[in-house]
Amino acid sequence: MRAWPRRPEALRLGGTVVSRPWHLQPPDFLEIEAAHARLAPHLDVTPLLEAPAVNAHCGARVLIKPECLQRTGSFKIRGALNRLLQLTAEERARGVVAFSSGNHALAVASGAQQLGIAAVIVMPSDAPRTKIEGTRALGAEVVEYDREREDRAAIAERLQQERGLALTPPYDDRRIVAGQGTLGRELALQLRARGVQADVVATGCSGGGLVGGCATAFAALSPATRVWAVEPARFDDTARSLAAGERVANAAVSGSICDALLVRMPGALTFEINRRLLAGAVTVTDAEVIAAMRLVHEAFGIKVEPGGCVGLAALMHGRIPLQEGIAAVILTGGNIDDDMHRALLAPGTD
Amino acid sequence: MRAWPRRPEALRLGGTVVSRPWHLQPPDFLEIEAAHARLAPHLDVTPLLEAPAVNAHCGARVLIKPECLQRTGSFKIRGALNRLLQLTAEERARGVVAFSSGNHALAVASGAQQLGIAAVIVMPSDAPRTKIEGTRALGAEVVEYDREREDRAAIAERLQQERGLALTPPYDDRRIVAGQGTLGRELALQLRARGVQADVVATGCSGGGLVGGCATAFAALSPATRVWAVEPARFDDTARSLAAGERVANAAVSGSICDALLVRMPGALTFEINRRLLAGAVTVTDAEVIAAMRLVHEAFGIKVEPGGCVGLAALMHGRIPLQEGIAAVILTGGNIDDDMHRALLAPGTD
Repeated sequence: MRAWPRRPEALRLGGTVVSRPWHLQPPDFLEIEAAHARLAPHLDVTPLLEAPAVNAHCGARVLIKPECLQRTGSFKIRGALNRLLQLTAEERARGVVAFSSGNHALAVASGAQQLGIAAVIVMPSDAPRTKIEGTRALGAEVVEYDREREDRAAIAERLQQERGLALTPPYDDRRIVAGQGTLGRELALQLRARGVQADVVATGCSGGGLVGGCATAFAALSPATRVWAVEPARFDDTARSLAAGERVANAAVSGSICDALLVRMPGALTFEINRRLLAGAVTVTDAEVIAAMRLVHEAFGIKVEPGGCVGLAALMHGRIPLQEGIAAVILTGGNIDDDMHRALLAPGTD
Repeated sequence: MRAWPRRPEALRLGGTVVSRPWHLQPPDFLEIEAAHARLAPHLDVTPLLEAPAVNAHCGARVLIKPECLQRTGSFKIRGALNRLLQLTAEERARGVVAFSSGNHALAVASGAQQLGIAAVIVMPSDAPRTKIEGTRALGAEVVEYDREREDRAAIAERLQQERGLALTPPYDDRRIVAGQGTLGRELALQLRARGVQADVVATGCSGGGLVGGCATAFAALSPATRVWAVEPARFDDTARSLAAGERVANAAVSGSICDALLVRMPGALTFEINRRLLAGAVTVTDAEVIAAMRLVHEAFGIKVEPGGCVGLAALMHGRIPLQEGIAAVILTGGNIDDDMHRALLAPGTD
């Protein structure tokens, strides 16, 4: 069930088979390997941590991958750089455009600054100020929009066409998925080096690029490990899409503390990958997320943003079935300002 | 100047040459390599991080090694395990005794628990409760003493003799120094893998085991890098001992937020190593330490204890001269409870 044609040339949409451009086809593991070779000089290797307090809370052995310590504070730099490093000289000269609620924005801005590429980022005006200001501080031009009323993809597309910018989407692109997949590759190899075979990997899911890339890596490196997507309550578009067998959208567009995970619906490419490779998708509440943030800060002294620890929240609250009692969890991002982090962790907020 | 006889058999003390037991002679790099092979299965590899905000604050490129993410929350597990793993079967059966203000206590207790060895830890009664309780939670017997009036080494020695326990000292032992030296080895190899030659390494110094082990590793792997010890103001026994050419003690025994760095005077073995290998020693104030703790939490989302970031504090405040503007800093520990961390970082405390 986990295999797919190496280079599927066509996609079935509403009964019609249409051909697709290369960048909308699923990456295979060799492409993740190639992305790793491309990215390694630019990235940190985040550690694999374990703490008795976390194991006790989860009733299982839980290995924690704090990717929030990655450059730019999230895994997003992997996909962004994998796209930017494959631009032609001409594309580099014209610049890139991206849309993002924050972490992908920081990643594209940072990667572009490092490579000397101009970047325009379309961000919702209700994104955390730390993310909007951080993106501007990295030299990017930020275009704000109203999440409730405007379509970010349409704004980005207009900028792309008007100014000849290369689109660097947050998830629905094989180069992005392969880049995020390098995190799954790194995790799988760290588990192997430690002599551990994880039952499950749990990670947050918004558009589905990270979980899809990780599932692709684990299918190759540790096929017995089941990869789960975790979403905030009311933003369970991937869970409902998996159940429906087709992409469905969320009714809500705001109203969760997990600002990084408020996508409207799964990507076309990422859903194609995830429906084949995921064990499933589960949800967690804001209160469960806060409990996980607190546990991470107490056990490891690491600050995680709400959307960054939904995977751990799901394990703490028994949402994900384990066979052997061994789980790996990715902490995907840590971009939350200190005041907000303090306020969320204050006693009585969960 | 950096070389010494591989197995010095004698130590000159006040004009008299006395022979010394093996464990009080300096380790060489091969012993650090051996320690690495022994420890690797039991330890995490902490990452090497960099952030524009930190570089801007220091006016230099600063590579951060957050060893506070290591198991037990500090580097101390390296030396402790290197000692415990070399016990004879008979010594293991009888158990170990250690004295420590906290991080070495947690490390010995954790290592002993993992290896099924009984541990008695002598701790000052004013040590952070999180460290005393954490040590008890790891199954060790804790004997508290009054830091102002009692001699911890004498208490440990009595326990050692009365109960036949193997002493696991916090720094003055070649196995401890070699174990801590694996952190220097890991850092030197990470810098090399990144193509960076650091001008300096800055790390906190209490008894001097870590800085001595790191200096031994850098002398072998990156001899152009100068290793600096950093101490809290009023606890600058290593700085004054280096200036005096002999070990001198601090007048103060308490009164710094850096609870991990309140040793009375350098160790005999560690001072012998450090006077040969260190570039020097500098001091930082509590306010400077708090500014460094805040910067680390904002830039990386990592909670460091006060004594854990004196090295960064020294770089932020221009205490350490740089040639090429590249420094590596070790964040040595993170064992501070969340309430205290919050209180120290609240606006107006520095």
